[in-house]
Formats: sequence, structure tokens, C-alpha cells
Amino acid sequence: MNISPLCPTPMLQHETIQMAHGAGGRLSQALMQRVFMPHFHNAILDLLDDQAKLNLPSGRIAFTTDSYVVSPIVFPGGTIGELAVNGTVNDLAVGGAKPLYLSAGFVLEEGLPLVELETIVQSMAEAARRAGVLVVTGDTKVVGKGQCDRLFINTSGIGVLRDGVNLSCRNLNVGDAIILSGTVGDHGMAIMTSREGLSFESQITSDCAALNGMIGALLDAVPTVHAMRDPTRGGVAATLNELATASGVGIAINETAIPVKPAVRGACELLGIDPLHVANEGKVVVVVAAADVATVLDLMRSCDDGRDAAIIGSVVDDHAGMVVMRTAFGSRRIIDLPLGEQLPRIC
Amino acid sequence: MNISPLCPTPMLQHETIQMAHGAGGRLSQALMQRVFMPHFHNAILDLLDDQAKLNLPSGRIAFTTDSYVVSPIVFPGGTIGELAVNGTVNDLAVGGAKPLYLSAGFVLEEGLPLVELETIVQSMAEAARRAGVLVVTGDTKVVGKGQCDRLFINTSGIGVLRDGVNLSCRNLNVGDAIILSGTVGDHGMAIMTSREGLSFESQITSDCAALNGMIGALLDAVPTVHAMRDPTRGGVAATLNELATASGVGIAINETAIPVKPAVRGACELLGIDPLHVANEGKVVVVVAAADVATVLDLMRSCDDGRDAAIIGSVVDDHAGMVVMRTAFGSRRIIDLPLGEQLPRIC
Repeated sequence: MNISPLCPTPMLQHETIQMAHGAGGRLSQALMQRVFMPHFHNAILDLLDDQAKLNLPSGRIAFTTDSYVVSPIVFPGGTIGELAVNGTVNDLAVGGAKPLYLSAGFVLEEGLPLVELETIVQSMAEAARRAGVLVVTGDTKVVGKGQCDRLFINTSGIGVLRDGVNLSCRNLNVGDAIILSGTVGDHGMAIMTSREGLSFESQITSDCAALNGMIGALLDAVPTVHAMRDPTRGGVAATLNELATASGVGIAINETAIPVKPAVRGACELLGIDPLHVANEGKVVVVVAAADVATVLDLMRSCDDGRDAAIIGSVVDDHAGMVVMRTAFGSRRIIDLPLGEQLPRIC
Repeated sequence: MNISPLCPTPMLQHETIQMAHGAGGRLSQALMQRVFMPHFHNAILDLLDDQAKLNLPSGRIAFTTDSYVVSPIVFPGGTIGELAVNGTVNDLAVGGAKPLYLSAGFVLEEGLPLVELETIVQSMAEAARRAGVLVVTGDTKVVGKGQCDRLFINTSGIGVLRDGVNLSCRNLNVGDAIILSGTVGDHGMAIMTSREGLSFESQITSDCAALNGMIGALLDAVPTVHAMRDPTRGGVAATLNELATASGVGIAINETAIPVKPAVRGACELLGIDPLHVANEGKVVVVVAAADVATVLDLMRSCDDGRDAAIIGSVVDDHAGMVVMRTAFGSRRIIDLPLGEQLPRIC
């Protein structure tokens, strides 16, 4: 039989996202080849199957998911793409897992400039390389103009759990120390000030970072760490409340011990926001027995991501389920979960 | 020290989604407790850690992700929640994996009635139970009114790959039979007609279904199946083109052999759409050696999800990389990948 060869593929040189980029046809393939594959390609993803096939080392695994809707999509210190990698890597790391593989699901708004998408994808791929994880499977949907805000990203992640480590928010014991890896509020206030066009004596930059390097070194050295959590939405206040509630213990913290950058403190005061309620994207709260404190603190401070690590409080035999702070003025106040929404679309 | 107990939690009896439901504070917890946990709860999810810890049987795993943005979110034959479960389950199953665990990431629009969210979540949980998978980790973000369209869902999935099965779109050999598990176009045309308010002699209903039961039985009986794919976006046309391209072979199909429901055919003619380009959500294309055809067809037809299974064509030693259809009139035409977008937001 004789059939003339197909016409060459049309140039497909659109400069903005079209509905057809999400339709599973020729334009979807063009988007893959032009934007996604050059940055993400690896031996598993390159097969372009509907599912990645993975050889995992034996053992238990950790599995997590997060959707990212931060606005703006590029902000001082990061992009929604870096956030989508680092946030999911950190959720695996604080569970005691070595992060290995990510999925990436994009929802794109019709009309989004391709050059903006490419900026995000490139920064996302670089973040994955820095964190030592591979994006092995993905998906792209397009919705009409006004049906989402530029782009949303979901990443899910798989990691292998370390043997001999048992981290749980139910593990806190009276006498444990509460260690925070660095300054609070940087991410949330970087977003807020860039969104509101505020400027301070020094620019506020997001702390967006993958912590699996530091956390891995820490768990190798001190596998007896009791609990770890990354204080993202709801800030350190939400994290400490969750730990206190889950373990049925009280937590006492000292305001003067909590590292806050002057510009962040200034912005929080101006906007009437408690820095303990502000999201962080490169910080971890570590709970350890008193005997391990010196080792943990030395190790964290030797890492870039933990150089400002500080003991901010301890687990106490009082006010079970509650977090109480001794203020700079010597009074005490309850640090509650935030009720409302002070900082929308921060992550 | 003496601190009076916290005021009881406010009733939090909002009837619509508030920005604060996504803020990681008290309202986020309330949403979890009121809507998500009653439907999804299981021993792993109930721990409410930032990551699920899973014991997998040894062996290779499959990992996949999809975001779902279908509009309307409830349609004849399903909901966005059922689609999010079944679509991801099917992506694992067609890779030869036994689906085990799902993640669920929700992006919700401010103002979405909670009763609508609950309908979706309930149908999603029922779909997971029918498919025999557990939702083990999740995430909820809220964006402002007009920043997404009601709700989007991402599901990622993990399954364990069967030993001794090697499915790949690069496995097609000349002489293989192309089997389709049932009628084409039901899902896409159910969405289109419900969206446009069209009615036909009989209502068109989505074929949305989890196929892991039928596919598992098939692979147990015939582990030598060469390739499987679910013809979702881009329809059977896109699937066959991907198979032909990946294997570097030609595919010949017969129009008269392709099962199409009369109402779907009528709707496609009215709207000027080729049913081969329309998304299916409960169908699978199976490629097998000629020797296995009878066994495969018998087995598929004995299952509810495959009762209309038919041989629609074969792999041929001609027009490599192309799909050619013998039409009902005896002529031949090339079945190409769809270029544009006929059916936006179908899945």
C-alpha cells in the first residue's frame, strides 16, 4: 500500500500556553520536548511511559504529596518550582527518609508565557539536582484563562526510610530540648513584602532550601532524635502545637532564644503578624534528649542550612498539649495555632 | 504555673471554603476532621504525619501522577474524585503493577460549598475502596475566588510491579493483535453533552472505572501480553500513534470493528468530532501475540469492564510509525494524533 508521508509537524512555535498543550496530542508532545524534557530528562523519565518503574532498595518507604500555589511564582530567594522540590524533599527528610524520586504535576493557565514556564521548570530541575532527587513521572493540564492563577504545581515524593531511626510527633518526653535550625519567618515575609511592594533596610529573602543533606548527616550521627518537623504553613507555632498535642506534653519556649532577622521582625511588626505564625521553607524543628543536644547543635551549626541553629525551648511537665512562651519582658503567653489566614498563598 | 484552659474551639461551622481552611491552622484541622478523615481514614493516614510510612513487598515499584481539572466536577457516570482515583489506578495497572497506595492533593477555590466538596470526597473514597487502594497521604491548598475553578485534584500512586511481566509501548511485533476493551468516546462525550446541555435518545454516561481487577486477572493468565495503555486524553488515536511510534511499526485498524455506542456516535457526528480522538476513562488497549488472542478476548469478555472487548486491528509490516484505518466504505485514512483541542478540561 502506498501512503504519502505525513506533512512535517507544524512549527508549534507558540509563545504562550494554549488549551491544546494539555490535550494529549501533538502540541502536548511539543511542550514536553521543548520545555520539560531538556531540563528534567533522566533515564527513567525519558521512557515517557504513563508510570515510572523504579528499583528501590529494600526497606520501608516514605510517600508524601504537596500542591504549590504560591503567588507570585518568582519571589526573592526562589520560585514556585524550587519550592515544589524543596518542600516535598523536606517532608520526606523530616520523616527519616532519604528522598529519591519526585513526580511533577502542572496545572497551567491558558496564556501563560512559555518563557515564564521555562524559568520555573529550569529552577525546579536545578533544585532537584541540588537535592539529589530525580523527577521520574509527570503530568500537565491546561485550564482556560481565569480558571487558575498562572500555574500550580503538585509534587509527590518517595524516599527510603533509614533503619534504626524512629521519628514521630508522638515521641516527645519531658526534658527533651527543642532545637530550631535557624531564623523564623523568612519565607512568608519574603512573599508578603514582594507582593505588597514593601521595602525594608535589607531585602527579605526566602529561606527555601532542601534540608535532606543536613538531616541525613544528623540522623547518621544521632539516630536517636525523637522528632523532626519542618515549620511551613502555620509556622513554628503550628509545628510546636502539633508536637505538644500528639505527644500529650507541654512545650515551653523562650522568645529571646528564637532567631529572627531584623528585617523580618520589622516587617512582622509593621503588618501585625507574629513571626512564629509565618511559614518557613528551609527550617526544621528537631526534638532530642538533653544528652544529645551538644552533638546535634554542633552538627547543625556546621551545615550551611543550620548555622543559626538554636535551642528555643524544652518539653515540660506542665500544661500538657499547650505551648507557652516566656516573652522578652518576662511574662508568659500561650502560643496557639493560628485560627485565621494572615498570609494567603504563601506556598 | 497556672494558665487557664483554652477557650473551646469555635464551632467552625462555615458552609463554604474559607482561605483559612488552607492556612495550616485550626480551620485546616477542622476541615480534615469534618470532611477528609471520615471518608478516607485508615491506619496509615490516621497518623497525620507529613509523610506516609509504607511497608512494600519486595520488588520493583511503579509510580505515577495525574492532575484532574475536569469540568463539571459531577457528570453523568462519575465525579472528579472518582476520576482521580480510577485514572491513577489505571496508569499503574497498565504498567503491570498492582496499585496499592494513593496520595491526594486538593486545590480548592474560596467559596466552594463544603457540601459539594464532601460529595466529591465521598465518591473518591468509595472509588478507592472499589479499586482496593488506600489514600495514605494528602494536602489541601485554598486559593482566592476566581483563582481556580471550584477544585482541582492531584493523585499520585504507587504499585508493585508483577514479576515476569514486561509491558512496554516499545514491544509491538508485526502480527500482534490490537484489542480494545470496549466502546470508545463514552467519557469525553458524557462531559461534552452534559456541559453543553445536549440530550440524545439515551443519556451518554462516562465509562470511568478502575481496571486493575480485569488487568490483574489478564496478566495472571497471560503474562506475555506485549503492551497495554489506557486511551485517555487524545483517545484511541493518540494511544495507537504512541505505540506505533515507540515500536517503529505500522498499525492497521478496521473502522467497523471499533465499538461505539449509537448515542456517542450521534453526538460525535453532531459536534464534528472523531470518536477515536475522544478520551476514555475505563478502557484499555491491549497488544498481544496472535497465539494469545483467544485467551485474552475470552478473559476480558468475562469481566464487566471488558464485555464489549474486540479485536480492532493488528501490527503490520508497512507504514512504520503510522496508524491507518480501513473505513466502513473500504477506503483507507491515516489516523493522526489530534493537533488541537476539541474537548477542553475533559479529565
